[in-house]
Amino acid sequence: MSSVLIQALPGAPEIREGDNLADAILASLQRNNLTLNDFDIITVTSKVVSKAEGRVVPFDGTDDHKVALIASESVRVLRRRGTLHIVETHHGFICANAGIDLSNTAEGTAVLLPLDPDRSARKVRGDIERATGTKVAVIVTDTFGRVWRTGVTDVAIGIAGLRPVQDLRGTTDHTGRTLEATEVAVADEIAGAAHLVLGKAAMTPFALVRGVGPEHFGDASVAEHLVRRAHDDLFR
Amino acid sequence: MSSVLIQALPGAPEIREGDNLADAILASLQRNNLTLNDFDIITVTSKVVSKAEGRVVPFDGTDDHKVALIASESVRVLRRRGTLHIVETHHGFICANAGIDLSNTAEGTAVLLPLDPDRSARKVRGDIERATGTKVAVIVTDTFGRVWRTGVTDVAIGIAGLRPVQDLRGTTDHTGRTLEATEVAVADEIAGAAHLVLGKAAMTPFALVRGVGPEHFGDASVAEHLVRRAHDDLFR
Repeated sequence: MSSVLIQALPGAPEIREGDNLADAILASLQRNNLTLNDFDIITVTSKVVSKAEGRVVPFDGTDDHKVALIASESVRVLRRRGTLHIVETHHGFICANAGIDLSNTAEGTAVLLPLDPDRSARKVRGDIERATGTKVAVIVTDTFGRVWRTGVTDVAIGIAGLRPVQDLRGTTDHTGRTLEATEVAVADEIAGAAHLVLGKAAMTPFALVRGVGPEHFGDASVAEHLVRRAHDDLFR
Repeated sequence: MSSVLIQALPGAPEIREGDNLADAILASLQRNNLTLNDFDIITVTSKVVSKAEGRVVPFDGTDDHKVALIASESVRVLRRRGTLHIVETHHGFICANAGIDLSNTAEGTAVLLPLDPDRSARKVRGDIERATGTKVAVIVTDTFGRVWRTGVTDVAIGIAGLRPVQDLRGTTDHTGRTLEATEVAVADEIAGAAHLVLGKAAMTPFALVRGVGPEHFGDASVAEHLVRRAHDDLFR
């Protein structure tokens, strides 16, 4: 692929429990005078997936409640500093505060991660294909920190229609030598790219990514392909 | 910013020690019928920066030599498995094998990271400004693994003309509440996005990124702003 376009889809409706995300995405595309093509990728923030799926819980604003919510969403705490917890979630993600979102939510509520973001992505993808006949990929994104670098980036926590990791092992470089172990986390690079156009405060949960090569499309999941297995983890 | 375009610049000349990278970038742009605008971003892989700066050393292919090279480029080893070393480099980067590249290099050689990638980026940026009068940003990229996720992504190891982290702390969301600590590692998201169009084996060390908002431009460096300080690090 020689160029990739990332387009925000502003003007999405506020998402509420039970809303169909594919309908909201298609309405946002229409509002921006865009139509879908095969091999387009739609990114969706986990926040609106969680809202649509009813993963919003009461939150009284106290540290005790925050810690209790984190515990309920975690299988293990790796590190703790104050109320900041680095945990392993039920999904196997290692992230801060179990991915629970306390900002940009209705007063007195917290938003938990979707129960199964890969399933959420598959649902949106299936609904879009039924409505439009186009074969797109869908990435559910969330904002994670990194261990040794400042700041957060968006990563893929659920995926449908796209292989999240491009395996270059065994291929040769332009001098004919076999490349060293190189598995590229394409889905995370796409999620981060989409984050560039979203703008946290501007209610733009959807982006369109166009130009990623057809070779990346196929059946896969984040849970199976993008979460490092514990036995491969040098820092757990 | 509502859209961002990422454009590979194929057809770059092979870079050799002493070559001027800005000249090579401008030649690649011309070959692709592109001209620079203010607020464009050029990404450059660390590999060609190292080649231009003579950071290529003999490598006999043995594990012993590999381990010795890694040691010479590191201040500390965090973890080791076989010949895979997770180290802290002289720059403060924590990465595999001190970022030494053994693939896609001339037979019998290894490519070390640039000595000061921020300085390298400033040099390229200054040369481009002198040649074209445009004020662009330059990001030197490298490919790093992640602790808990499969696969590698490209990140920024040097920068000029762009603030690598967008600090949203203290701003409010659309409901008027103050956002939780949110520093977005924009430079890493741009580096990852550029990686989507590069194609490891295709000799495309340069990409043009267009559409990132002017609010991100300014003086900063990776060393100062994107490398987490040891006292903030829960996993060192």
